[in-house]
Amino acid sequence: MKNKPYLKLEEIFHRLGILRDIKGILHWDNATVMPLGGSSGRSDQLAEINALSHAILTDNNTADLVEEAENDKSLDFWQMANLRLMRHKLKHSGALSKQQVLSLSKAASACETVWRQARVENNFAIVLPYLENVVSLIRECAEAKSEKLGLSPYDTLLDEFEPGGRSAEIDVQFGELESFLPNFLNEVLEKQKTNPPPSLPKGPFEISAQHDLCLQLMSAVGFDFKHGRLDTSMHPFCGGTPDDIRITTRFDENDFTSGIMAVLHETGHSLYERQLPEKWRYQPVGEALGMAVHESQSLLIEMQLSRSLPFIEFAAPLIRDAFKGSGETWEARALYHNLIHVEPGFIRVDADEVTYPLHVILRYQLEKDIITGDLALKDLPAAWNVSMEKLLGIYPANDSEGCLQDIHWYDGTWGYFPTYTLGAIISAQLFVAAENAIPNLKGKIAKGNFSPLIHWLDKNVHSLGCSIETEELVKLATGHTPNNQAFINHLKNRYLS
Amino acid sequence: MKNKPYLKLEEIFHRLGILRDIKGILHWDNATVMPLGGSSGRSDQLAEINALSHAILTDNNTADLVEEAENDKSLDFWQMANLRLMRHKLKHSGALSKQQVLSLSKAASACETVWRQARVENNFAIVLPYLENVVSLIRECAEAKSEKLGLSPYDTLLDEFEPGGRSAEIDVQFGELESFLPNFLNEVLEKQKTNPPPSLPKGPFEISAQHDLCLQLMSAVGFDFKHGRLDTSMHPFCGGTPDDIRITTRFDENDFTSGIMAVLHETGHSLYERQLPEKWRYQPVGEALGMAVHESQSLLIEMQLSRSLPFIEFAAPLIRDAFKGSGETWEARALYHNLIHVEPGFIRVDADEVTYPLHVILRYQLEKDIITGDLALKDLPAAWNVSMEKLLGIYPANDSEGCLQDIHWYDGTWGYFPTYTLGAIISAQLFVAAENAIPNLKGKIAKGNFSPLIHWLDKNVHSLGCSIETEELVKLATGHTPNNQAFINHLKNRYLS
Repeated sequence: MKNKPYLKLEEIFHRLGILRDIKGILHWDNATVMPLGGSSGRSDQLAEINALSHAILTDNNTADLVEEAENDKSLDFWQMANLRLMRHKLKHSGALSKQQVLSLSKAASACETVWRQARVENNFAIVLPYLENVVSLIRECAEAKSEKLGLSPYDTLLDEFEPGGRSAEIDVQFGELESFLPNFLNEVLEKQKTNPPPSLPKGPFEISAQHDLCLQLMSAVGFDFKHGRLDTSMHPFCGGTPDDIRITTRFDENDFTSGIMAVLHETGHSLYERQLPEKWRYQPVGEALGMAVHESQSLLIEMQLSRSLPFIEFAAPLIRDAFKGSGETWEARALYHNLIHVEPGFIRVDADEVTYPLHVILRYQLEKDIITGDLALKDLPAAWNVSMEKLLGIYPANDSEGCLQDIHWYDGTWGYFPTYTLGAIISAQLFVAAENAIPNLKGKIAKGNFSPLIHWLDKNVHSLGCSIETEELVKLATGHTPNNQAFINHLKNRYLS
Repeated sequence: MKNKPYLKLEEIFHRLGILRDIKGILHWDNATVMPLGGSSGRSDQLAEINALSHAILTDNNTADLVEEAENDKSLDFWQMANLRLMRHKLKHSGALSKQQVLSLSKAASACETVWRQARVENNFAIVLPYLENVVSLIRECAEAKSEKLGLSPYDTLLDEFEPGGRSAEIDVQFGELESFLPNFLNEVLEKQKTNPPPSLPKGPFEISAQHDLCLQLMSAVGFDFKHGRLDTSMHPFCGGTPDDIRITTRFDENDFTSGIMAVLHETGHSLYERQLPEKWRYQPVGEALGMAVHESQSLLIEMQLSRSLPFIEFAAPLIRDAFKGSGETWEARALYHNLIHVEPGFIRVDADEVTYPLHVILRYQLEKDIITGDLALKDLPAAWNVSMEKLLGIYPANDSEGCLQDIHWYDGTWGYFPTYTLGAIISAQLFVAAENAIPNLKGKIAKGNFSPLIHWLDKNVHSLGCSIETEELVKLATGHTPNNQAFINHLKNRYLS
């Protein structure tokens, strides 16, 4: 039995899972503690791990084992799902040569390093040649995969982050939002004018107090510090491994809400990783489903849960304690009003829930055009600014608040942006379903009792790993396939009523 | 030309060098930031890297290339040295099966984790079965290598950390020290009685002030923060990679000297790693020579340089500034007297220069007996305590200050301990040679001008990498092969005159 092809495949993917975890730690290290002089070595390290993983996946023996395992009639549901995912990974990797993997990995590392400087110096020109190199390799890889997978080049990129995701469907979903949001945004801004939020408590707020408050809130929501930690980095993220989850945030001395909300967002990601099925650790079927569902988990915790009035009623006393605050501006309702304040701005990661999808739509449209070749990279800054004015009514003064703001394209991440808004859509659907399933959820939240919600997420999302596909998961959990309705209702309820 | 077997070998060892660097970062992470729940995953990660490295080294293709490269008459001096080292590594790895490598890696990780608990709880019994497993695998590996390398099992272990090191020679060197030190120690203690050191400044000393002072001293001695950083861990170490050096220390609120001296010690290691020949980065010949020379670099910076009166004359104003100290106890001469205070104690890492070799001799004798089987592990605690009394005249009250104090044996490091004292011996020889070569070195040190010394070390040690062997390096740099004379003279000068 131990010699069954399927079991041999599990051994192979176990090793690949370990290599993936190593990358998780190296990426965390990169973003939090690595001195600048380590960049070149780190680039070598990541390229080597990528090349090793590619070599294992493209080994003839691996492909033969998959063929043989297909004939195994004894596989159960999870094993069959696991095998399907293995085949999917083989198809992606098999389309690329070792040289392409190495070149892309190194080009992306080099470009990311220069981007950091370009962003600080507001100098798109210095990073342009590096970005051209990255995009030319990304295109080359996407075209190679296009044939193998029978997808458009852009969809092969999307398929890596969101298996099964297709731009034809996203075009429809985003099209609806693009026609709904600008008018809606105007209505919200009008309403805010007549009913401005009370002023926020005045800082400075000591960083160590903000940090301690974050730890309290993470614990309350269910973060397990035996298997994870909180650090600071330029951009918040959730990385590491499912046993050793590294979340990060950044603190603003003048606005304590930004650090806290970033932590709660990343805690949402972390709960998903931590509650993935332990039995399938290191196997493809034990991984998170795709980036849309992943983002739905962070946004559910940040936007649906933590920026709700019941949550703020729970958190307000902790917040007052942390900063020794008292008076009207520290009341739950005042804090809540500030946390749902809407204002078009240039920076995606600082954007509110209403304008965020417009930031994503902008990037989605531009990256599709860049991959097809309809937009040349040298014209990216101008195209960005024009789009920004069209979608959000504001025009960036420079590229640092324009096309240089995000790391993604520069570090080789193409086809990722749409998953942010797909996640926002799914999170709204899931939260409605959780409210229907859990009696008096709002009351429980106001008392700091989050475990019914977290258990519901575990049961309906986390513990399923990759055993079913995104569309099916959302349908099983909510009764509907992914669609904009719940998200639009949520926005209307929160921002207009 | 690019197809030359030798050049293909360079490519292979380049990859091995990258894997080694990845381990360097994972080990640092382990010791500084990893949450406890990450242990099992980290063990998998290290085992996977060890198995991958072993697979590359034992690939038939690698062995064939070495054979072919031997006939290449065009190789220059460094390439020939590189090839010799490659062969040495192949011999070590080729003696072991993949299963042995994996088992040992995992057994060592498991034992190390339990050791942390055993040490806190002063409970040798709970770690004993894990240690027995480690030692049984270490013995199995040593015996397998013994045949291939034509060395005794213990010498195969030593040969990994100190290539060319042989216990027959160490027995002689350590024998001399064992007969010299106990009487010498008594003389020193007598002298101290009649001339007790002035009392140390009283704490507590703020940790952040200690940390800042460490950064100042590291910079002064030449640590390059673009390529490294300082953190805290249970035991100080120097890890990471030559481009990204991670040194650590631990701080004691009541004694600022312990954190500072640990930092200076590790800075000595770091300068060696950082100044290894860049041209040979990732190649065996570009690595540090062996652990004896490595330790000679840390001890030269800590013991020969930093605990000397001229250095303290330079550092005293910085120390006073850091802690706002003033008065007699803060004078250079008073600080110096405290820094060279001798006192037999149970803990090796806290030991002074005079008693330290006795701690090492104790471990060296015990580990040899354990590897031959003359000493059973269950009898280790008693044997340790008896030895301690014999060598240092003190008897441990429990195993936490006895055989549980060091991580080495528990994490699978056997045959390493003697390199500490071999390093002390070499550091004394090198410092005498540097003093002879650099006019008025003491005066320069007192003024904080360390670059002549660091350049001398670079030229005579660091930049040579592994191009020549330890004995030859010491002879070229000092005019003598390694021997105890300079070390004994140094002890007499510093502690009796």
